[in-house]
Amino acid sequence: MTSSPAAAPPATAVVVGTGLIGTSIALALREHGTEVWLADADQAAAHLAVGIGAGRPLGGGGVPGGPADIAILAVPPAAVAGCLLQAQRGRLARYYTDVASVKELPLREAGDLGCDLTTFVPGHPMSGRERSGPAAARADLFAGRSWVICPGEQTAPDGVTLVTRLALACGAQPVSLTAAEHDRWVALVSHVPHLLSSAMAAQCAGAPGGALALAGPGLRDVTRIAAGESGLWTEILAANAEPVRDALLGVAAQLAMAVEALGGIVAGDSDAAKQLTALLEAGREGVERIPGKRGGPAPHYAIVQVVIGDRPGELARLFAAVGTAGVNIEDVRIEHSPGLPAGVAELSVRPETARRLAAALTAGGWPVASPA
Amino acid sequence: MTSSPAAAPPATAVVVGTGLIGTSIALALREHGTEVWLADADQAAAHLAVGIGAGRPLGGGGVPGGPADIAILAVPPAAVAGCLLQAQRGRLARYYTDVASVKELPLREAGDLGCDLTTFVPGHPMSGRERSGPAAARADLFAGRSWVICPGEQTAPDGVTLVTRLALACGAQPVSLTAAEHDRWVALVSHVPHLLSSAMAAQCAGAPGGALALAGPGLRDVTRIAAGESGLWTEILAANAEPVRDALLGVAAQLAMAVEALGGIVAGDSDAAKQLTALLEAGREGVERIPGKRGGPAPHYAIVQVVIGDRPGELARLFAAVGTAGVNIEDVRIEHSPGLPAGVAELSVRPETARRLAAALTAGGWPVASPA
Repeated sequence: MTSSPAAAPPATAVVVGTGLIGTSIALALREHGTEVWLADADQAAAHLAVGIGAGRPLGGGGVPGGPADIAILAVPPAAVAGCLLQAQRGRLARYYTDVASVKELPLREAGDLGCDLTTFVPGHPMSGRERSGPAAARADLFAGRSWVICPGEQTAPDGVTLVTRLALACGAQPVSLTAAEHDRWVALVSHVPHLLSSAMAAQCAGAPGGALALAGPGLRDVTRIAAGESGLWTEILAANAEPVRDALLGVAAQLAMAVEALGGIVAGDSDAAKQLTALLEAGREGVERIPGKRGGPAPHYAIVQVVIGDRPGELARLFAAVGTAGVNIEDVRIEHSPGLPAGVAELSVRPETARRLAAALTAGGWPVASPA
Repeated sequence: MTSSPAAAPPATAVVVGTGLIGTSIALALREHGTEVWLADADQAAAHLAVGIGAGRPLGGGGVPGGPADIAILAVPPAAVAGCLLQAQRGRLARYYTDVASVKELPLREAGDLGCDLTTFVPGHPMSGRERSGPAAARADLFAGRSWVICPGEQTAPDGVTLVTRLALACGAQPVSLTAAEHDRWVALVSHVPHLLSSAMAAQCAGAPGGALALAGPGLRDVTRIAAGESGLWTEILAANAEPVRDALLGVAAQLAMAVEALGGIVAGDSDAAKQLTALLEAGREGVERIPGKRGGPAPHYAIVQVVIGDRPGELARLFAAVGTAGVNIEDVRIEHSPGLPAGVAELSVRPETARRLAAALTAGGWPVASPA
């Protein structure tokens, strides 16, 4: 088995675990001509992945012709270490990587189990979506996303290079972090937001129906991710318990300050409102820093609101009108009016194009709220 | 001035405060032929509202021909009581209502100032949007929204009937609540979500840029409303401080439980994960209860993902293809890949139409992630 040229993807790969992530990686590698073997404890999942062209089934005899360049262990966080040990014992590949959404736990467990840590390159492709099953897989799942690579002290540099090439073959952007950094950062940007969303939504579980009927888009935005699968999320949070706890304590401290400021206002303390404003200002500052499109800070788009009817083709007609005006839509939100079939499409556009778009749509008979 | 027939809108009205809300109400009343007079401390705002056809300017001599049927005081919460006193002294109308997003504070202040509470009908049209200025106004701003009416013990029944007709004329659904219920409920569904969003975003204000680069749509959803104007939100939160504090304490208790559970997991307590799952399950239950489209519980839509290019007309082409397939889109989200021009449009459709849509789009050459 010869190694590939410097920038090329691995020539041969084994994917262990043909769920959404594993199968998507396999599909991406197949597009580059990599020879891929597939294995999954669930025979049906492996069979389906083979069926959609993600690779060939890995037989009991291992990889024909000797170890593959790399084995991708696309199994849940708690299963990584055991899977790695088994794969290394079977000499499945020259190097190994995983895709778990936490990095310290599998690395520690692998060490405890006596795995060879020189050939293990922990990784985490950020697909940004929690779906499941090979049927949802697609070769571009990681296109433009970050692919975090967390080499440990013992990791062989050649292994890091190989996983970097794997990430690039999937269209992702390799990002090198320590496992501790990774875990702390995903706690902040992914795990804690999920807990906040759940805590807010949990308050709604016992609320009067009349109260919830007053809910607007704000509550729906904040609670959207709380709909995620609780078993999966318990596993993720438990595997990253310490960093999540630390980051959550930070948010809890902010909320305790807000509770205190509100109490101060009730008690007539004239300075208490300033504390609230300071929290709200810090929040605005934080939102500004969260990258939106293309990795940069979220630009300030202008919003053009258009009233739309609830029938097939209405959005097609709207976007045809937008296209005719030559304006590019950066984002769309559809806000439905409870109790009425009509809705409002909020079109985010570059500020300099907003007036032109509003004028064109108005001329076309669309009810538009002109930008101020 | 004769009163209108039972279901008809008021025949004459004064709108005091021609911002977004006041001007939108005026525009809606104008569509029903109501005679509308407009006043605003800011002459330019009043002039603009007159200019877009929302009514006639109110002269120094008051309403020609005697008091109007109703005066709508569309001023900030803290200004309602003073505005009411002045309007009642000037015998501006037979009945008065306001539009403030909190209800107990203005009512209490109006009592303290010695206003006539028999002719005051506190109200809160839920527009669901925080924009400002008459230029953003539109007659259908309240179409299908709840319009909360909070009659006090002294309020005359005729006044309640009149404000109900006002709400109906604006296309809204009148909802009768006590001022205390209203304030407690908006604390839960609007004010506390805003504070949570701000607290989460504030944590991002000091976070390393590398951490924020890992952010996905979840963090963006949770922090979106934290971008709101801090001055306005401080005023809203301060005016409803006690109910917001109470509801926030409920969320804080949930988060304290999560912190404890995470600590238990770190310490090896095998039951701690169950506490986390219970919180996440309560969150899922809560999300189910939050009404989505048309006031009912949010239905479970299927999501069809389509890869789209970043150029004018791309969405038009996509929605044209969707329209040709005869499928109605219930919601759209566009998720941009950081670092790449391409994005993914997530189309929410009724589950029974998802496969048909995916097949039609695939046949049309669109890269589609088939629903599982």
